[in-house]
Parts: sequence; C-alpha cells; structure tokens
Amino acid sequence: MNIRIILKTLGAVSNLVAGLLILPLICAIYFGENILPYVVTMIIALALGISLTRIKTKVNNFFAREGFVTVGLVWICIALISAIPFVISKDIPNYIDAVFETVSGLTTTGATCVTNIEVLSRAGLFWRSFTHWIGGMGVLVFITAILPKDSDSVIHIMRAEVPGPSLSKLVPKIGDTARILYMLYIFLTVTEATILKLCGMSVYDALLHSFATAGTGGFSTRNLSIAAFNSPTIEWVIGIFMLLFAMNFNLFFFLTIRKFKLVFKNEELRWYLIIVLVATLLIAIGIAPNSPFSGEVSQLPYAIRRMKHMFVNIDKTYVDALRDAFFQVSSVISTTGFATKNFCNWPIYTQYILVVLMFIGGCAGGTGGGPKVSRMVMLVKSIFSDVESLVNPHVVPNVKFDGKYIDKDTKHSVYLFFTLYLMTVLVGAFLVSFNGFDLVTTFTASLTCISNVGPGLSLVGPLGNYSIFTGFSKIVLSLLMLFGRLEIYAMLILLSPKTWKYNS
Amino acid sequence: MNIRIILKTLGAVSNLVAGLLILPLICAIYFGENILPYVVTMIIALALGISLTRIKTKVNNFFAREGFVTVGLVWICIALISAIPFVISKDIPNYIDAVFETVSGLTTTGATCVTNIEVLSRAGLFWRSFTHWIGGMGVLVFITAILPKDSDSVIHIMRAEVPGPSLSKLVPKIGDTARILYMLYIFLTVTEATILKLCGMSVYDALLHSFATAGTGGFSTRNLSIAAFNSPTIEWVIGIFMLLFAMNFNLFFFLTIRKFKLVFKNEELRWYLIIVLVATLLIAIGIAPNSPFSGEVSQLPYAIRRMKHMFVNIDKTYVDALRDAFFQVSSVISTTGFATKNFCNWPIYTQYILVVLMFIGGCAGGTGGGPKVSRMVMLVKSIFSDVESLVNPHVVPNVKFDGKYIDKDTKHSVYLFFTLYLMTVLVGAFLVSFNGFDLVTTFTASLTCISNVGPGLSLVGPLGNYSIFTGFSKIVLSLLMLFGRLEIYAMLILLSPKTWKYNS
Repeated sequence: MNIRIILKTLGAVSNLVAGLLILPLICAIYFGENILPYVVTMIIALALGISLTRIKTKVNNFFAREGFVTVGLVWICIALISAIPFVISKDIPNYIDAVFETVSGLTTTGATCVTNIEVLSRAGLFWRSFTHWIGGMGVLVFITAILPKDSDSVIHIMRAEVPGPSLSKLVPKIGDTARILYMLYIFLTVTEATILKLCGMSVYDALLHSFATAGTGGFSTRNLSIAAFNSPTIEWVIGIFMLLFAMNFNLFFFLTIRKFKLVFKNEELRWYLIIVLVATLLIAIGIAPNSPFSGEVSQLPYAIRRMKHMFVNIDKTYVDALRDAFFQVSSVISTTGFATKNFCNWPIYTQYILVVLMFIGGCAGGTGGGPKVSRMVMLVKSIFSDVESLVNPHVVPNVKFDGKYIDKDTKHSVYLFFTLYLMTVLVGAFLVSFNGFDLVTTFTASLTCISNVGPGLSLVGPLGNYSIFTGFSKIVLSLLMLFGRLEIYAMLILLSPKTWKYNS
Repeated sequence: MNIRIILKTLGAVSNLVAGLLILPLICAIYFGENILPYVVTMIIALALGISLTRIKTKVNNFFAREGFVTVGLVWICIALISAIPFVISKDIPNYIDAVFETVSGLTTTGATCVTNIEVLSRAGLFWRSFTHWIGGMGVLVFITAILPKDSDSVIHIMRAEVPGPSLSKLVPKIGDTARILYMLYIFLTVTEATILKLCGMSVYDALLHSFATAGTGGFSTRNLSIAAFNSPTIEWVIGIFMLLFAMNFNLFFFLTIRKFKLVFKNEELRWYLIIVLVATLLIAIGIAPNSPFSGEVSQLPYAIRRMKHMFVNIDKTYVDALRDAFFQVSSVISTTGFATKNFCNWPIYTQYILVVLMFIGGCAGGTGGGPKVSRMVMLVKSIFSDVESLVNPHVVPNVKFDGKYIDKDTKHSVYLFFTLYLMTVLVGAFLVSFNGFDLVTTFTASLTCISNVGPGLSLVGPLGNYSIFTGFSKIVLSLLMLFGRLEIYAMLILLSPKTWKYNS
C-alpha cells in the first residue's frame, strides 16, 4: 500500500475544504452571523492540509487498490472536517449528529437528524446544502479538474468515485473530462437556480435547493421540504431537474457537441425514462380522486403520533395526482429525497413501488445513487439469458446492453454487485434493528441510506427524522451512506484487514 | 418437448394419488365420517391416471428440460386433485382456498387459510397433514422408489425434485437411492410419532404432527399450534426433530453404514448447527427475564385486534426463554412453521433474525425449503473471494466448500439462484401489495411462502391467517410456494413460453 501518496492526496483535499469554507464564511458575513465556526475550521483544515502535502513521495506506484482506499479515506476525512462548523455554531451541538448530517450531505443522501431545520443559522444551512453540491459530482473529480496533472492515480481515483459500473472518458485527457463534467454541472445548477428565482423563490432558497437538486441530495431549507412553497410550478421544475441530474452527464456533453444520435441510442436512458413513466402512472392511479385504492391508508402507529404537519392524503384533481406521483418518483429514483406529500399515507402498493425504485437508483455517470439503472437492466437481462440456457443448453444466448454483448464476466460482476448491495442493506438493517423500531422503519432506513435517497417509510418517512436513532445507529447509517455513494467496493476494501497486509 | 412421456408420468402420479387416498378413507371409516369425498376423488384420479398411462411413447428422449417441466406439472396436477376432497366434505368449500391449502401442504409450507382448524373433519385433517409427508421427500422420488425402472428420465426428475444445488447418488442405482431415502424417512417419522405418543399425545395427534415435522410442513391439528399441548417436553422433541428432518438425509445413511467421518466432515451441517446455535442464543437474550430488549414490544395494529388467544410475551425463566428461542429458530430455519409463542410480540431484532433465517432455510437433501444453507455459505464465500480478487488482482483466491474448490461456474450459479430467488420474492410481494395490508405482512407473506415456512410477521404471524387475502393473492402465493419447493427453475421453465417452442 502506497501510504505516502494517499496521505498527500488527503492533504490536498483538506486544503480544498478550507478553500470551499470561504463560501459559508461570506454567507455568515452577509447575514451578520457568527464567522468563528468557519474561520476556526479553515485553520484546522489548512494546518492538516499543509502538513500532509509536505510529505515526500518516493515511488509512484498507484493501482486500483490505492484508488479505492484513497477515495474511501478522503470522503471520511472531508466529512469529519466539514462537521466541525455545525458543532461550533451550535446548529448541531453533538459531533456524531454533525458527522451524520455532513456524511448525509456529502453522499447526497439528505437524511437529517435536525428536528427543526428552520431555526438553523443561514450560513449553517448554506454549508449543509453546499455539501450536496460538492458530493454530487465528486470531490476528487473536482481536484482532478483544477489540477494540471494527468497520471495513473487520477484514473484510478475517478473510477472509484464516479458512480456507475464503468468510467468512459469523454476526451483523451482525464483532466479535460473532469473539467467538462464540472462545467456542465455548474451550468445546469445555475439554470435551475435562475428558473426557481423566476418562480418566486428567494435567491437564497433558489440557490440552496439547486445545490440539493444538482447533487440529488434532498436537504431543504424548510421543515416541510418542497411542500412548504405550495407552488405546483416549483414542483414541476424541481421534479424535472431531479430527473436530469440523475442522468448520465456524458449525454449532456453529446448534446453540446451535437451528437444527438448517441443520446437517442443510449439504452440506459431509455429504460430510465420507461421506469419513471410506468411508476408515475401506477402511483397516480392509486392517489387520484375516486381511486379504488384510496380507501386503504396504511397504519403507522409511531409515525401518526409524530405527524404534526399533516398533509392531504388523496389529491383533489387528476393533474395534482399526476404531479405528485411524478415528483415523488423523480425524487426517489434520482435518490434526491425531496417530498411534496407524505407518501406514508398513500396506498401500500405505491409505497412498495417507491421502495423498489430505491433499489434501482439513477443512471451511471449522473449524481444519483443506488445500484444504477444500467446495472439493474443488465441484471435482469443476465437472469433471462442464464435461465434460457438452462432450458436449452445447446444454444448460447446472446444478450446485449447498449449494443454490446453481455459477456460472462460482466454478468458475474453484476450479480456480485447486486448480492453485495443487498447483503450490506441486510447487515445494516440488523445493526439498526436493536433500536427496537418497527421492521419497515428499520429496513427502509438501511436501504434509503445506502441508496442515498434520504426519506424511507414509517418513522423515517417524509415527516420522520433520523434523530430517533442512537449514536451507534447513526454511525452505522453514516457508513451505509458512504458504502452507497462509493458503490460498496471502496469502503469494503478500505475496511478489509487484508488490504493493509499487501505491499507492492 | 416430449409431451407423451410427460403425460404418461402425470398418469402414474394420478394413480398414485388415488392409492394414497386410501389412508384418509380408512380414517373416515374409523371415525365414522363421510367417505364420499375420498371415494369420488379416487374415481376421478383413477380415471385420469388410467387414460393417461395408456398413451404410447414413441421416442424416449428425455432431457433436463423435460425433467423440469414434468416435475412442475406433476406438482400442480397433484395439488388440483388433492384439493377435491376438502371441497366435497365442505371442510374448505371454496376450491381456490382448497388448492391453496393443498399446495401449502404438498410444498410443506404450512400456511393455512382455515380460520378454525379444530372444526374440520378428522379425515380431512389427516389428509391435510399427510400432504406434508408426501411433499416432504417428493412425489416423484416415491414413484422412483416403487417402480423398477432406472432410466435417464428418473435422474432428471430426481434432480429437479430433490432440494439442494446438486443431487448425489448414495448407491449406484437411482432407484435404490430413492428407496433408502424413503426408508430413512419412514423410520424417523415413526420414531417421532412413538416419542410424541409417549409424551402424552393421542395416536392421531402424534401421527399428524409427525407427518408435519417430517415434511417440515407445519400444519397442526390445533388453532394454537404446538402451544396448545402446553408441554415443554413435546416442544423439545418437536424442536429437535424439525432440526433433524431439515438435515441432509445422506448423512443419516452414512450413520447407518457407520461412515461417521463423512458426517463430521460435512461442512453444510456444521454451518447449519452454528447458525441455529447463534440465532437461538441471540433470540434467547431478547426474550429472557429482565432482558434489556424486552420493553420494546412491536406494535401491530391489525394483528392485535385479531389476537384472541394472547400468548405470554416474555418468558418467566431462562430455560423457558432458551426453549422458546430454540423451538422458533428450529421451526423457521427448517421451514416448518410450528409456533409455541407469538413471536410478533418479541423484540424487533429477534423478528429480524427470524426473517433472515427464512432467507436461509434447511440443508440440501433434507425436507426443508428456502435457498438452503449450502447455497448461502457458498454465496458468502464467493463474495469474500471475489472482493479479495479486487484488492489484489494478481492473486487468484481459492475458496473451498466441503473440501472442493468453488469454481467460477459454481459462483455464477449461486449468484444467479440467489438473485432469482430475491426477484421472485419481490415480484410476489408486489402482486400481494394490492391487498393493501402493511408492508411487513406483504413482504413476509411472499418470503414465507417461497421459503415454504408458513407463518410470517404481522397479519400472517403465528396468530394470523391467510384467509385475509383475495383469491388472486392466494393463487400468487400458491405459485410462490411451488416456486420455492421446486427451487425456482422447474416452475420458471414450465411457465416460460420459450420452453414450448423448442423441439428436440
């Protein structure tokens, strides 16, 4: 293990965090709030960063293993530093809670343990939402974009940090690829913020909700999430942008260079849109006026007690039903987690669909979490093809994804990923089950954290909150978010004792 | 597809059912009950059997595909015939309900849609429990045991019907293997019945509960299941026998021929016992007196209303806690489904452990359901080995199961099976979700049916009942039970349109 180069990268990231803290600092100055939390944290980060970047590297060997470990450590390190301002400003006085909130922000999960968001400081809320924006496209991708070097290490790091089964370079140089991705990211974020401002949001709200949409995070500035704005237009805008940010950014690049064919041919995009369409329609039927399913309202003993802000359960018009269904589907499949309705009161089958969407997630190369549409499509195709070869062993069934044959190794890695994902959810849920909450809360908390969605069902539903969990469970859930954001392997390799035995 | 030979086998099975119906007929005569249900069904079965066995087969080609299809069709066919007596005797007047009950019996699930078991006719109850015994070791294995032929077709059929990833012949001739298995099966069943009689059960109860234990089914003659007998000794006896019947029968054979080493070396057995031990201890801690978890009792809105017969939630002594924990673990991992306590009132983490056990099931070559211990152990080992090769791609990790290396093809088939199993559970749960019951009921109903356990949690818990579901859901759940008992492939291949296209 090449420890020196890993520590050096940690130093660079620490310096970067110090630089990014300028933004909430400006925010604090503008709103006349306490600047101490940000100044102190900047000093800590810089001290750490400068001392680590001074380390001299002897050998330059850097393999996939080092890439995974670096990415895992970097994410943990940023979270630990970024949590400090919340503790100093007393926005979130408990450090474990603050780390949970920051991990939730960086991994673009959006699960919160703050019971009343609206009393937080303006700068604190800004920093909280901004972590979504940093985490969405990736911290190391950002460093790659701003640093001039273009070595092996960068490719291994990008591969471990960018979501999806494979990384495709848009242009020959990896640094240029990272720059293009960030430019598109900034352009889309600014566009959304502008539209939200035009729809009547304040600049502050528009910006923070755009950060949260861009990273497909889900932190809002209001306790009622997007429902607080009470504006169908805003719901449509955010609904559509959530969908966009969870798409593969390569496609936006193809659009800018007018390669429209490549966009239309993209199989993952097609499935993604089909899933959204089918799920939206199925759910809309359940929540429409006079729906045959609307009578069945699930019973949630704890949750009902907690429901201080009761939403309307069944929509008044068909358009409302369609919008609510679309918004929630878009929010869950993109793994953002904004809410406009308390879907815990919707018919059970619609909740079940949302849980299934949590198991799918966004597209590879987007900012969404979950196992990704491409992996799930390949999984289903692999199953069909493998079962067919049982029926007729003489015929070798050839299935294609995106025009390429799915070979045995690809099938193997897709099966492995899915099984590992599920096992991690189950282990997480087991550790959380000692809290003694109902099984729906326990299981969806684990699933929604690893898939980086945010809200689950029952006690962790749109009106629920993660403050109910013990410190131990919060650490488990934080780890699950990191497992999900870094697609299992990075964290698994980081935590495996065998990793630290090999020397090369 | 060789339709003729499949129909001929169906005929033989139909004749066999007619023959087996003599037993409930005798029972009806003995208790002075209506004999009509059994006589009429025997006539129908014989008419069908005789006409089908007259079909002349031209070619004798019979491959794995034909084996799967035959097994699938045979099981459906037996269930449809065996359900008739319940309808005629008015024990279960609705035919769909009767089919559900029979499928549940044959697949050794033990899920019931009868709300008051104790009012059924004695002969009806006998037939209901006897289906467990037939289904446990397998109908076609039985035919193989009594018929003198020893052809290819028999091997393909045995392979599709005997639970577990692979079939090992005990002796060179497959017919002899089947006979040995059935002799061991009968011996163990009689032993259990004798012990239960000595513990104070009536001959009738002892016999019926032994049938249900032998097949790891779970149908009882009492509404309160084993709790009705209120005897710790009976609970220990049944607890141990459930564990035995879910073990690989090959091991019992090795014991009879004094090859003790083969038993001690068996890796699946070791893991099975370790899992039982760990789960028992973990659960016992949760339900023991003064347990730190005992305060947390899950809240089940519907179920509580249905609880007419409330059990004691927390045990009075440590021995009681240990016995209850062991009984329930044994009942769930062996996929029997007997109950002595309403575990829906136990701490959530213990319920979670039971759900995980449903995902494991018994040993290959036993009468238990579920994905089987061997498959799960191989799955976990494969994951570890595959992740390790990510950490260090140069080293090819070699993992062993039962002394043999797990090669890539084995890994592939284990991943495929697990993924397919889970997908089937999810699809099943989706179809059941339209009933509008809570998600725990919906999901555990699907899981417990495919794993052939019987009781799940919440509304389908030990005090619950499947009568709450619609006819459509009952059909879905019946199919899930068949999927589980025949380990997915047989049913999948039977229902796949492509199967019927190939001609060979």
